[in-house]
This record gives sequence, C-alpha cells and structure tokens, in this order.
Amino acid sequence: MGSRVGIAMNLTQPLHKACRERPAATATISGGRRQSWQQLAERVARLAGVLRAAGLQAGDRVGILGLNSARYLECLYATWWVGGVINPINTRWTAPEIAASLDDCATRLLLIDAEFRHLLEPIRSHSRCLDCVLDTGGEASAGAPAYEDLLAGAVPMADVWRGGSDLAALLYTGGTTGRPKGVMLSHDNLAINALAALAAAPRLSSPVALHVAPLFHVGGLSFLLQLASRLPCHVMMSSFEPAAALRLIEQERVTECFLVPTMIQRLLAAPDFERHDLSSLHTLIYGAAPIDPVLQGQLRQQLPAVGLVQAYGQTEAAPVVTILGAEHHEARGPYPGKVASAGRPIGITELCILGASGAEQPVGEAGEICVRGPTLMQGYWGQPELTAATLRDGWLHTGDVGHLDEDGFLYVVDRLKDMIITGGENVYSVEVEKVLLGHPAVGLCAVIGVPDDRWGERVHALVVRHPGLAVSANELLQHCRLQLAGYKCPRSVEFRSDLPLSAAGKLLKHLVRASFWQDRPRHIG
Amino acid sequence: MGSRVGIAMNLTQPLHKACRERPAATATISGGRRQSWQQLAERVARLAGVLRAAGLQAGDRVGILGLNSARYLECLYATWWVGGVINPINTRWTAPEIAASLDDCATRLLLIDAEFRHLLEPIRSHSRCLDCVLDTGGEASAGAPAYEDLLAGAVPMADVWRGGSDLAALLYTGGTTGRPKGVMLSHDNLAINALAALAAAPRLSSPVALHVAPLFHVGGLSFLLQLASRLPCHVMMSSFEPAAALRLIEQERVTECFLVPTMIQRLLAAPDFERHDLSSLHTLIYGAAPIDPVLQGQLRQQLPAVGLVQAYGQTEAAPVVTILGAEHHEARGPYPGKVASAGRPIGITELCILGASGAEQPVGEAGEICVRGPTLMQGYWGQPELTAATLRDGWLHTGDVGHLDEDGFLYVVDRLKDMIITGGENVYSVEVEKVLLGHPAVGLCAVIGVPDDRWGERVHALVVRHPGLAVSANELLQHCRLQLAGYKCPRSVEFRSDLPLSAAGKLLKHLVRASFWQDRPRHIG
Repeated sequence: MGSRVGIAMNLTQPLHKACRERPAATATISGGRRQSWQQLAERVARLAGVLRAAGLQAGDRVGILGLNSARYLECLYATWWVGGVINPINTRWTAPEIAASLDDCATRLLLIDAEFRHLLEPIRSHSRCLDCVLDTGGEASAGAPAYEDLLAGAVPMADVWRGGSDLAALLYTGGTTGRPKGVMLSHDNLAINALAALAAAPRLSSPVALHVAPLFHVGGLSFLLQLASRLPCHVMMSSFEPAAALRLIEQERVTECFLVPTMIQRLLAAPDFERHDLSSLHTLIYGAAPIDPVLQGQLRQQLPAVGLVQAYGQTEAAPVVTILGAEHHEARGPYPGKVASAGRPIGITELCILGASGAEQPVGEAGEICVRGPTLMQGYWGQPELTAATLRDGWLHTGDVGHLDEDGFLYVVDRLKDMIITGGENVYSVEVEKVLLGHPAVGLCAVIGVPDDRWGERVHALVVRHPGLAVSANELLQHCRLQLAGYKCPRSVEFRSDLPLSAAGKLLKHLVRASFWQDRPRHIG
Repeated sequence: MGSRVGIAMNLTQPLHKACRERPAATATISGGRRQSWQQLAERVARLAGVLRAAGLQAGDRVGILGLNSARYLECLYATWWVGGVINPINTRWTAPEIAASLDDCATRLLLIDAEFRHLLEPIRSHSRCLDCVLDTGGEASAGAPAYEDLLAGAVPMADVWRGGSDLAALLYTGGTTGRPKGVMLSHDNLAINALAALAAAPRLSSPVALHVAPLFHVGGLSFLLQLASRLPCHVMMSSFEPAAALRLIEQERVTECFLVPTMIQRLLAAPDFERHDLSSLHTLIYGAAPIDPVLQGQLRQQLPAVGLVQAYGQTEAAPVVTILGAEHHEARGPYPGKVASAGRPIGITELCILGASGAEQPVGEAGEICVRGPTLMQGYWGQPELTAATLRDGWLHTGDVGHLDEDGFLYVVDRLKDMIITGGENVYSVEVEKVLLGHPAVGLCAVIGVPDDRWGERVHALVVRHPGLAVSANELLQHCRLQLAGYKCPRSVEFRSDLPLSAAGKLLKHLVRASFWQDRPRHIG
C-alpha cells in the first residue's frame, strides 16, 4: 500500500496499522451495517482512485457534506490517502454560506450525501469554483452514478503518504468580519494534538466509540483522531437522539463518547434511561463549556463509574488546548475543587495570559489566553494579515479571556471575540447583526447570548427600529432565515427604544449583556 | 526566552512550560539539594551560554560523561537549548571505547563529572577530536574552572529553538562489526516517541519520578522525556542501591519509576522493605525483558497497588516500540494471559513480522520484527550502507525475532543480532570474541549469554586453545579487562576441545547456546 519514507506524523497511518494488527475486527458500525478494517481500507483505496480519476492532485481541497456515517469516514480517509485536504461542511449552513466556504479556498470537488441533494443546485448557482460532485448517498440520482457503483468500478490506488507539515484540513469558522475564515491544519497539527490529548486523559485500548457529535465539527473530528491509533470500533450516529444513543451504547458495548453538555442532559433525562445496561461506558468527553454542578451531580448518581473528561480548545489550535481529566472531577482526587476550571494545558502546549499592554499576567489576573506549540494552525487561507494578527511571535491569540490559578489550571471567563455558543455551535454576533441591519426598518441592533437551560446560550436580538418604520419580530426572523443557518437566527427578538452607546457612538454590549447574566456565571469552553 | 516559530516537536519546550505553569515547584532533588523550575531554567540558559562561548554551533555534538544528577539534566537541556546534539557516554566504557565514540562523530566538547576525572587523560590520549573539556563535577581541578564558577560567570542565552527533524541525540550502541554505531535521533523522533509511549500507558500528572536507570541509556533518557511534559519532580540517584531507593521513594512520595527486572528483584529482597511506606508508588515501568512470573507474583504481594508497564524497543526506534500496559498485567484484565508478551505497538508505530523471503508472516509465525513510523532514527552517523541495510523502504529491521498473536500482541523470541542482555546492558558477542581471538593462545571461541538469576543473562565464553598453547581462564579475563568495559567481560570461561561448525566452517552458535537454555525460555526485550 505505498511506501512511507521520511515524513513525520500522518493521518492515514491508523488505517495501515489497524489492517496489520486487527484486519478482521469491526472498524465501523453504521446504519446497522458492519465492516472490518480490511474492508474499510479497501474502500478507501478505491474512493481515493475515484478522486484521482476526477483529477484531484495532492494539496487540492475536497468538500464533504454529509451526516456521520461509515461513508463519512471513507471520504475523510480517501481524501488524505490521495493527498488531498478535507473541507468539511457544516450541514446546517445555507447554500450561500456553503458556496462561500467552497469558493474561499477554490474547492472544486464536492462529496455530498443523499440527504443534501436538494442543496446541490442552490450551491452550484452560488459557487464559482465547484465543477465536480460525487454523490455518496446510496442510489444513483439524475446525472450522478451511485456511490457503490463508483467504488466497484474504481481502481484502488496506493497511499501517497502525505504528512508532516502538508495541509490535511481546511476548517471554516464564522468570522467576525463576515468573510469565512479557513483554518489551515497540517497532518502534524492534527495528529500531534490528538496524541497529546490522549496522553493527557488516559483512555482504554481497543475502544468502542459512539460518534454523535458531527464529524464536520473540529470537536468530532478530534475525537475521531484521538481514537484512530487505538484499534477502535467506530459506531456512527447520523444525528443525536437520546433513546437511540442509549440503545447503541448498550448493544455495541460502547466505551467512549464525546458529547456537548446539552446532549448529556438529554441522555440522562431520557424516559427509559434506567432500563439500559450502560456498564461498558468508561469515558465521557465533553466540550464547549464546563459542566454544570447540577448536571455533574446527576452524572455521578446515574453513571457513577464513568470518567468525565473536559476539553477546551479552538479550531486554530487543532483544537485541544487544555484537558480537565477524570481525576480532577473527583471530590477526593488530587486537586478537588478544580471542576469549574478548563483544566491544564496538554503536554506539548504552553499557555500564557496576556494583559491589555501585552505583558504576561500573574496568577489570578485575567487577560487574553495565548497558546504556543506544534499544533497551531498554519494560518487562515488567503488571509495573511488576519493570520499575522492572530499568530504573533509563535503565539496564538485565542480571543478568549481567562486566568490561571496557582496550580496552573485555566479558568475561561469571557470571549474577546463577540461570539455566542449555543448547543455546541459558534455564532458570531456580528454576522447576525449585519443581516438584521440589512432590513430597512432596523436602525440599531445588538445580538447577544442569553442564558438558556437547554442550549447553554440562546441567540437574542435587541433591536431599535428607525423612527416611523414598523417591523415585527416574526418578520425579522423570516428575513434572517433566508440568509443564515437556523442555529444562527435569533430565538428571540426584543424591541428597545435605545441601546447604550459610548461617547464615540460604539455599542456598549457588555452593558446590554449584563442584565441577562447578573445571576449566573457565563461559562464558555 | 527566545521565540519559537514554525517548528514541530522540540525537547526544550517542557522547560518553558514548567517555568510558566509551575515556576516555584521543585524540578530536581539531587544529592539532598532541591531546585525549582525557575532555577533550573536559569542554570540551563547559563550553561548554554558557556557552551556557546566555547564555540559550540547548532548541530555540534556534546559528549556527556556523568552519573544521574541534577547537573546531568542541566547538561542535556543546555545542549538542546544552544542547538547542540547530546552524545551521552556509557560510564562503564573504557577510555579507548569512549574515545572511539567521541571520534566517530567528531565530538570536540566533553562535559565530564568529577567521578570520571581519572579517565580524562586516557581519553585525551586516544581521541583525535576532543579539544574542549568542561568539568561539571563541583570543585575546580587543575586547569579547569569549577562548574558553579562557570555558571556564575556566564551570560544566559535565549533558547535557539531547534526542533522537528533537527538532530537532538547521537546514541552509541555496540556494533556487530566492531565499529561503534551512532544512532541519529531528531527532536521529532524522541519527543513523538515519548508522547506516544505516554498515551499507550497512562500515568499521573505532576509525577514524582525516581531516576535510577542511567540517563546515558536510551531507556533512562526515554523515561525522562515521558515525564518532561507533565510538570514532574525529578529525584536523581547516581547509582542503584536498594536501601537508598526505598528511603527516597518514601521520603519524596515517588509516584513513578523505571527499573530493569534485576533492580526490581533487589528492591523487593531488601531487608528493610516492609518498614517503608511505599504507598505513593503508582507506576513501575520495566524494560529489557518480560517479567518473570515469580517476580510478578512477589510484586503483586509486596506492592499490590502498583501498576506495571513493560516497554520493548531499541535505540533505532527512539526507543519504545511496544507497551504492555498495567491492565494487561492483571489476571482479570481485558486480555489475561498476555503477560509473557511485549504488548502491542504504540499508536504511531506499525509493526510487521517478515519471513526469511521478505514476505509478511501470518499470525503466530516467527520472523524478523520490523517497525515503521515517525520515530525511526535518521540513520547511523557516517555509515550510509549500514543505514540502508537497516532502514529499508521506510521499515526498520530490528534484528529481533518474534511473532504476533491474533490480538496483535508481540512475542519476542530471539535476536538475529548476536547480542547478550546482562543487567540491562547490551553486549555484542562479536566484540568480545574479537578481543578473545586477539590472545595468541585462543584458536576458536564462542561468547554467549547463559541464564543467570541475578543478571538475566551472563556473558559466558567457550574457548578452544591452539594445540600446544596454554592459557588460564584468569589470564583470558585479564586480557579482556584491558580492552573492554567490565560488563562486557566474560563472567565465566569454559575450555572445550572443539565447537560445532557448519560444513562451511561457520560456528553454529545456536547449538552451543541450546544446552544452556533447554529448561527455560530465553526472553529478551
């Protein structure tokens, strides 16, 4: 299967490894179908052949639009196998948003699942670059051969063994400027980060993993890579549904799972929770926010043997920055009382807190969280100035605000970047505000995150109408839905007669936000 | 402290990290003295300044001759800080052996501890390259300023941040050809291997580690690097002594230790073992050989809470190849009955077994153990042909013989290279045979390892004298001692009238060996 010489870390190696050490073991369980590592590798080599035949060259980007499935894994691995760069697409984005991220990095090839066929024409109409679409969704559709036919007819190719500083992924995050930001991550970035996250939070070998967090998110992708080298079995769920997740954990003896707190909550609250045997579960990794003490208490009662691991990070760091390990969740552990923190930096990562003047802050003093190490992104695609502003002297300026305690634990207290995290998705306020301001009746607006028991935060819009012009909350929501993914649209709209402005006319958003958060800490992760 | 931009893994990062996260915590305890991370980093920056002032350039080699101590750590880190390459010297070698390894890679600068001052003149007289010696051993000696004076007068320098594929270490292993082999390892090789070994065998954060295995050995060095990123406290022992080791484990609340089985045996047999509180001990890593079932039974009884971890590897793989984790040492673990194995390959490493024809062997069939991954050495210094013979198509041919079982566990059964492991030291038979054959009375000889309860194997020589020439065992040992390190010299000599030869006149060593090993498996690691 090709020859690997003189490269550092590489993302296809786990496939070669598993084929050598456990060829007949189950690699994926997806929609009731199982395949072995040998079978998976064979299909990856064929799909890589298909991509090559479609003209894909090393370094070219491949858009992937689909829900979690064995096919999604095949798309990821085949792209790396042929030397390409994955560009995973958030399935909640609208066609114009998708087209913008494809065009930003000149992605001309798209792998698309059946569920999203209806988006294809709108995407094509908005995109300048897209010129090749492969349907991965089962049966043939008009003008596209079925995925299985494609694979059956393909010539399997040898792994080209890209690796080291070669680009492996372009991950788009919403931008504060409106233009999407394509975070460039190399094989080294992603593979070293996964290894270090693993070393920081010990897990079982030969795990059975349940993939409910979407693989197009950097969190889901990182979870996959933290599993890859341990001869895992991947159980895929196309979307999160508590009853189905409980059934799969019991049936497949799942040992490891990555969830956002919202999902944990729904899992524990499922009506038939008590009827399932969940004794196989060993580790529950959660991200996006520290765990609420009430929820942690429920977990301790309902799943007492499960180790909790929190990861904090961001796409630009590939992504894990700190880990709060299982031993730090225990009241009798070596460091009780750290559960409100985001943990300590992983082994290869250094962290410092910089004050407004750029000086390093002492213990306990808040400032911008900056990180250094081998997992920092190569930059933002085609945006050298933004890259230079974010990566300075080898330090990534995260835009998050936090402080360290005397034991080196990090507490994340706020975001410099004006961002809302709702149900695990990041929403940049400015993007929503731009759309609202595009409505003729809106004179001034502020989009903020407000507390929400289910989603952590909820997108809330405060709007000052132009004198004499009328618009209803419903009309504004309709206006937003045409241009924004559903999760970015305000869940609630509140009309005000004015909003607090600085002497220079700048919106004082922290004052707007304060009244909503006075009773509770605003945790983020 | 300098700026890190665009490099992958780097061996000085843990120093920066610890200074940032735990500056006042104890970094080293050595000979009763403690120093913090802040102090250690300050001394490293000064020693680096001394090396720079002595003319050291990036990529230059630095010989280090000393026993375990805080100073030894300073020498390692200062060499990397200034961009140099460590060349750690086995303290048991004779002056001609040391000079040969210094000259092989043109090491002109030597850091030498007080204990070895008596070797300096003999080394100088044999070496062509050595032209600068810095005494790290305390008080000034004739012509050399004291170490503390050197540091006090130095200008601290900024880290040059070498890393990635830059060379970090030249580790000399005895050669089957007589010429020493300098294994070239990069920052990436060593740092990635340490991280992957850690991920494969979970350990505590903020460990307290006891260093008894010498740091000039790749095993001791790897143990250090597996600790480095976890904000450790290093407790140094200049040589292994069971009573002192027990005292230190109790006093300093040691959590982690790396030993060869011989040392474990002596520790458990110490007369005052029961009087010590060893409850802090969490992990015991052992190498060089699988653990004897009797010894394992003793461990389970005397230290029931301690997790055992076996590592198998070789210098050329930087060094860990497989790990047998604590859970695989347990009779009730997920894989009972694997304790005779060397475990499974670490996450980043692939392993295959090649038969004599070069084909991959099926499960259960023995062949040469070959490994692939980002930790393989860059090659042997100045020996391109030997390198090409050892690294073929990206695979390292280890020279060890083994087989895999159906769960991917490795069993090491023999060595292709004719090597003896005695008390954790490697002895190449051919080197000893060459010296014996240099004696005028020796006509034919075979040097083999024979079973030894204390050392695992013992160096044993079988000698056929030239007709009419007399020589005693004692005379032959005297002859060896002049040219070989003590551990390489035969412990016993046996005179024979003949030795089994093949039709082509080649010594059939496996026949010689067989009679000594018929009752017991010859484990190696």
